[in-house]
Amino acid sequence: MTELAAVKTALKTQAVETPSWAYGNSGTRFKVFAQQGVPRTPQEKLADAAQVHAVTGVAPTVALHIPWDRVDDYAALAKFARDHGVKLGAINSNTFQDDAYKLGSICHPDAAVRRKAVDHLLECVDIMDATGSRDLKLWFADGTNYPGQDDIRARQDRLAEGLTEVYARLGEGQRMLLEYKFFEPAFYSTDVPDWGTAYAHCLKLGEKAQVVVDTGHHAPGTNIEFIVATLLRENKLGGFDFNSRFYADDDLMVGAADPFQLFRIMHEVIRGGGLSSDVAFMLDQCHNIEAKIPAIIRSVMNVQEATAKALLVDRDALATAQREGDVLAANAVLMDAYNTDVRPLLADLRQDMGLDPDPITAYHRSGWAEKIVAERVGGQQAGWGA
Amino acid sequence: MTELAAVKTALKTQAVETPSWAYGNSGTRFKVFAQQGVPRTPQEKLADAAQVHAVTGVAPTVALHIPWDRVDDYAALAKFARDHGVKLGAINSNTFQDDAYKLGSICHPDAAVRRKAVDHLLECVDIMDATGSRDLKLWFADGTNYPGQDDIRARQDRLAEGLTEVYARLGEGQRMLLEYKFFEPAFYSTDVPDWGTAYAHCLKLGEKAQVVVDTGHHAPGTNIEFIVATLLRENKLGGFDFNSRFYADDDLMVGAADPFQLFRIMHEVIRGGGLSSDVAFMLDQCHNIEAKIPAIIRSVMNVQEATAKALLVDRDALATAQREGDVLAANAVLMDAYNTDVRPLLADLRQDMGLDPDPITAYHRSGWAEKIVAERVGGQQAGWGA
Amino acid sequence: MTELAAVKTALKTQAVETPSWAYGNSGTRFKVFAQQGVPRTPQEKLADAAQVHAVTGVAPTVALHIPWDRVDDYAALAKFARDHGVKLGAINSNTFQDDAYKLGSICHPDAAVRRKAVDHLLECVDIMDATGSRDLKLWFADGTNYPGQDDIRARQDRLAEGLTEVYARLGEGQRMLLEYKFFEPAFYSTDVPDWGTAYAHCLKLGEKAQVVVDTGHHAPGTNIEFIVATLLRENKLGGFDFNSRFYADDDLMVGAADPFQLFRIMHEVIRGGGLSSDVAFMLDQCHNIEAKIPAIIRSVMNVQEATAKALLVDRDALATAQREGDVLAANAVLMDAYNTDVRPLLADLRQDMGLDPDPITAYHRSGWAEKIVAERVGGQQAGWGA
Amino acid sequence: MTELAAVKTALKTQAVETPSWAYGNSGTRFKVFAQQGVPRTPQEKLADAAQVHAVTGVAPTVALHIPWDRVDDYAALAKFARDHGVKLGAINSNTFQDDAYKLGSICHPDAAVRRKAVDHLLECVDIMDATGSRDLKLWFADGTNYPGQDDIRARQDRLAEGLTEVYARLGEGQRMLLEYKFFEPAFYSTDVPDWGTAYAHCLKLGEKAQVVVDTGHHAPGTNIEFIVATLLRENKLGGFDFNSRFYADDDLMVGAADPFQLFRIMHEVIRGGGLSSDVAFMLDQCHNIEAKIPAIIRSVMNVQEATAKALLVDRDALATAQREGDVLAANAVLMDAYNTDVRPLLADLRQDMGLDPDPITAYHRSGWAEKIVAERVGGQQAGWGA
Repeated sequence: MTELAAVKTALKTQAVETPSWAYGNSGTRFKVFAQQGVPRTPQEKLADAAQVHAVTGVAPTVALHIPWDRVDDYAALAKFARDHGVKLGAINSNTFQDDAYKLGSICHPDAAVRRKAVDHLLECVDIMDATGSRDLKLWFADGTNYPGQDDIRARQDRLAEGLTEVYARLGEGQRMLLEYKFFEPAFYSTDVPDWGTAYAHCLKLGEKAQVVVDTGHHAPGTNIEFIVATLLRENKLGGFDFNSRFYADDDLMVGAADPFQLFRIMHEVIRGGGLSSDVAFMLDQCHNIEAKIPAIIRSVMNVQEATAKALLVDRDALATAQREGDVLAANAVLMDAYNTDVRPLLADLRQDMGLDPDPITAYHRSGWAEKIVAERVGGQQAGWGA
Repeated sequence: MTELAAVKTALKTQAVETPSWAYGNSGTRFKVFAQQGVPRTPQEKLADAAQVHAVTGVAPTVALHIPWDRVDDYAALAKFARDHGVKLGAINSNTFQDDAYKLGSICHPDAAVRRKAVDHLLECVDIMDATGSRDLKLWFADGTNYPGQDDIRARQDRLAEGLTEVYARLGEGQRMLLEYKFFEPAFYSTDVPDWGTAYAHCLKLGEKAQVVVDTGHHAPGTNIEFIVATLLRENKLGGFDFNSRFYADDDLMVGAADPFQLFRIMHEVIRGGGLSSDVAFMLDQCHNIEAKIPAIIRSVMNVQEATAKALLVDRDALATAQREGDVLAANAVLMDAYNTDVRPLLADLRQDMGLDPDPITAYHRSGWAEKIVAERVGGQQAGWGA
Repeated sequence: MTELAAVKTALKTQAVETPSWAYGNSGTRFKVFAQQGVPRTPQEKLADAAQVHAVTGVAPTVALHIPWDRVDDYAALAKFARDHGVKLGAINSNTFQDDAYKLGSICHPDAAVRRKAVDHLLECVDIMDATGSRDLKLWFADGTNYPGQDDIRARQDRLAEGLTEVYARLGEGQRMLLEYKFFEPAFYSTDVPDWGTAYAHCLKLGEKAQVVVDTGHHAPGTNIEFIVATLLRENKLGGFDFNSRFYADDDLMVGAADPFQLFRIMHEVIRGGGLSSDVAFMLDQCHNIEAKIPAIIRSVMNVQEATAKALLVDRDALATAQREGDVLAANAVLMDAYNTDVRPLLADLRQDMGLDPDPITAYHRSGWAEKIVAERVGGQQAGWGA
Repeated sequence: MTELAAVKTALKTQAVETPSWAYGNSGTRFKVFAQQGVPRTPQEKLADAAQVHAVTGVAPTVALHIPWDRVDDYAALAKFARDHGVKLGAINSNTFQDDAYKLGSICHPDAAVRRKAVDHLLECVDIMDATGSRDLKLWFADGTNYPGQDDIRARQDRLAEGLTEVYARLGEGQRMLLEYKFFEPAFYSTDVPDWGTAYAHCLKLGEKAQVVVDTGHHAPGTNIEFIVATLLRENKLGGFDFNSRFYADDDLMVGAADPFQLFRIMHEVIRGGGLSSDVAFMLDQCHNIEAKIPAIIRSVMNVQEATAKALLVDRDALATAQREGDVLAANAVLMDAYNTDVRPLLADLRQDMGLDPDPITAYHRSGWAEKIVAERVGGQQAGWGA
């Protein structure tokens, strides 16, 4: 197999999971601008996700968010997905929107609230059993807004206790993916603020517990690819929540703010064996002002382009230059790959896969956008439920 | 007059304006946790604000936010305020919550949207005429989320054009206060992102245009007191929107995150003559999880404490040490004032003013909290309207 | 003229000024790692710079730094440069390395120190007269390390006074370029910390005073292209000090940390007419661990590549999408240009100019690196003199 | 024992270690401003440190830095210290100033350089045996400046290998303290950039390996007290390198930039039992422009003041408010302690200890400053050796 063929093979097997909530309305604390044609039900979200997979060929699964995607019959929902050409992916818990959670959920000072939160997480595992999902993705909004508000250390004890109970409930082949976030919605302390905290908890929980890297959840200037390389080295990288940020957790399209960073991340993923392992490549984005489905298509393409460039790195030449301490030559090897225009390669790949070389145009030509605007009239548009 | 008497006199004349919206519900994009007893009308907000003034003695005015505080008869509202012992303060415009404003307001590419935005600002000046307010406070959510989305430079042209029209409408004794913000809700570019931009526009507009410093609207690490000193030197500091931040625009209680910074800011205000000029000391906060009225009382007290400490700086000793280049001595003079416990002085001051020395306790004793929970049942609680 | 021809013409006329000090040793506060073959004299620096111009064709001028490049006969130095195919460029002042400047230079509390600093700046204008340089580039290390150390506002007064005297000394066709810097070496306050401060001073000084944007001198997250667009709109952009940063003022090769940002900056330069005006494109970098001359060649090429991509933006399509509020389409137009591999175009351009298509290889083939290592033995290697 | 007596007892037993290098010259990459009277030998540094202990009573040990403090006879140096009333403290390694370390030390791609680095660390343990020091403090300048320069993951492997060899060499009662740093002097990647990385390595090494928190080594906005609480909970907090920062690793006097943060850190230390455990409280500062000995005295006092305030927190009231979810009350309990002026208490404490209540004045009165200026003439002033 030629080198280029190997690159194409790797690209064909890459799978990007799109999140159900990105098809619904979202916004900032100032305003949610509703868009026409937005789904009203989990089924309509899956139908939109199926369009993304149809034109890209590499977005076969859809993450659910509970309770936003709560249905009576998850097996039926899974079947609905399959009938549309996609599968259900990770189950995302939500312990931040019930009135009880004002001061936290699993870390709350009141045991009754913690019980409620853990019960919700256990329900999510029940749903995983029904949907056949592998991953329980946990993000906690827990934290405090003011110094002294709560006991930072006691909150860690509570967190450990809750996670332990949920971990014990995981079945064969199921995983717990723990996400960290620098800040927001808590503004003074956050209970899982960095990869170190998530890692320390996962280490104690066991092999089924792994860390999720959301690319928007770091302090300014953080070298994310270092974290990726480190977690892969520790066998603790469970997956990504991809998106872009200029400032905080902006949740823009992945690759939109710093495409070079995305390339560097994918370079570490590949170097660390993450492309062929169980690392989940998920999107977690908000399309507040742009059309949602094409934004998600673009995001999937951005991940592909970064991956393709990273696959093109001449690793032998790189290793040689690194070994020789030739700073400029080593950097140049990396930049050569980054500066390559991989769009022709990807167009080619899509044609190999029986797809239109240009997914955006294909989507616009499909009439789906007009169809959902026409048909999805009335009802309650999906959103964050805040 | 002794020195201490002068400090007390200065403190007695200080006035902190509280914002009507801080009495209503607020939250993050993830959740607004409603609180019991929250006002349902502008009048109820004013009644709450009157409680803050009653116990602190230094919060005599209340800022309005249009359209959140829109009423039929502003003169009647002003009378209602006076009857409750407070006055109406700055009028805050809102050009970010109408569906038309998805891509901006006064900087929008579409002239019709810009017209709508400018008309709203002109309406705000009409309201000022009716309420007798001096200040029109302008904060624009305008910006872009993606590189290329709009023409950054053309947006400045549109901004200048809109501001010019509104400026021309200002009456005698009225001011336009232009606020800048580093980011949010726009995530790539913001049309008034820093004091330099606000300053440049105000300079061209004329003397009635001044800059507002919101303490939460800066890049990480920004030396805010430098900006304060610079704007005072340029006669362009119109006022403050006080609040606290650890990360982004967290809108916590002023003085809660970095009380030493607040002290340094007040030191520059005093050194620059800002305490006795027309600088408006306004709060702009969100009490997402804490009780609103006592949080505002605490915030007013925090401003007072920082001001008192700054007034206690031995300016002669400071000037001497600075002139001699004695770094440690100069710093020590400042720290001596900061390290002083001014709470006894302020308790004293309050007793001089016929107030309870402890405003928080006085408020709790007043029964107001219980009264509003009992009485404000039903109706639509005030909030951001997002 | 075809569009591509126009792009090429623009690229041929672009000129990147390289800094004499980048050819000498540099480092961090922890260690300066000396390199073999580093120049020992201003002449040797010019000889190195001539190599950069020889292989790139677009680096015709060299900035000097006084006193690091002090010579007895500047006219002779200018002739030396011309004889080697380059010209002398901006004169950079240095008011931070004399023992007198521990607490500042032009802003120092002691008038004698300020006098010394201003005299140095006046000497720099004398040098400009001798070298025929157009630009006096001013960067001040002035600031304070501790709150209270000095009077922030008084320092602005002193700054204005000093600048006014130097401005008055400028001859016909000479400019004062004022650089701002967020922090370092001062750690509490900096006297020209942001573009707003530099702009305000330049505005008062007059037309010959303009702002320099050093791409490494901003707070985390700052949108630099916004500043560029704004300064161009105000006719106050004098030039750039190009380099890259991940964290602070890292002074890495331009385009190495965030090539997309460099492209966005060049897009605003072109859109604002900066490519054909008097905006100076200067490098200001430290090659602490990499070979200096090839690093500078690479930096010049990085500027060229970003410029080429920015020139390829389909501005009509962009304007249309912007006008229509089509966020994704507008962003896609920009990204299409950015994702283009412009290296073939630039190789072509170089051949048109009679140059080797690959400057790095051409330099390595030239034997210059070996020659200077062999010949530059003994003497005092050039460095920052700290 | 009354509560106040308990506070005093705790304060009397607190020990702050001062660093030998803080008595010598330091500066930025731009300039080292030498000061008169600066020590020329390790003995003179110890003599200065003894002055700090003499007036504060709580600075009984002095950290050494190898090779800056290399002597022929470490037992004699230890005796010299004892004779002056102080003891030798932690041994700090230096693997960043030899020319071999341009691309790293223990993580360098070349095994010979790694060998050299590890040998240096082993030598430091030899020195610990001779001095009786408990702690080996490791800070590595290792990292890369450009993407691709070296293999980020392989560098972790090398780091682990080197640390393992050194750890094995530790004797009974000796510890390895691993320090992390966000960036500088490496500007793209740092090999131990955050507490998570240091923690992961220490965990594998064993009980004698612990993490050091340098308060200046974090990303903007990092909640340091959270890290402190977490490391204490994990039994992995070895100690502190105290200093202050506004921007990067500014190394200013501890408590100078954000005294409230220092208080919050000490609150977590006390709450987590760190005051009575083996947590080492060390200073690591640079007094670039201020007089060194009084700056260190002031720093020791700042640590004391923050500790005293933290000891005054009404922990019962705090726990009650936290349990009840009373955000404002809990915050108020913390702020009450912080707002207390503890200087009278500390003056009292010093008199109990037979010291002058005012250490700064006592030092100035001692004549030491004049003595060292007069006597330390000639020779090579101590500095960083860069």
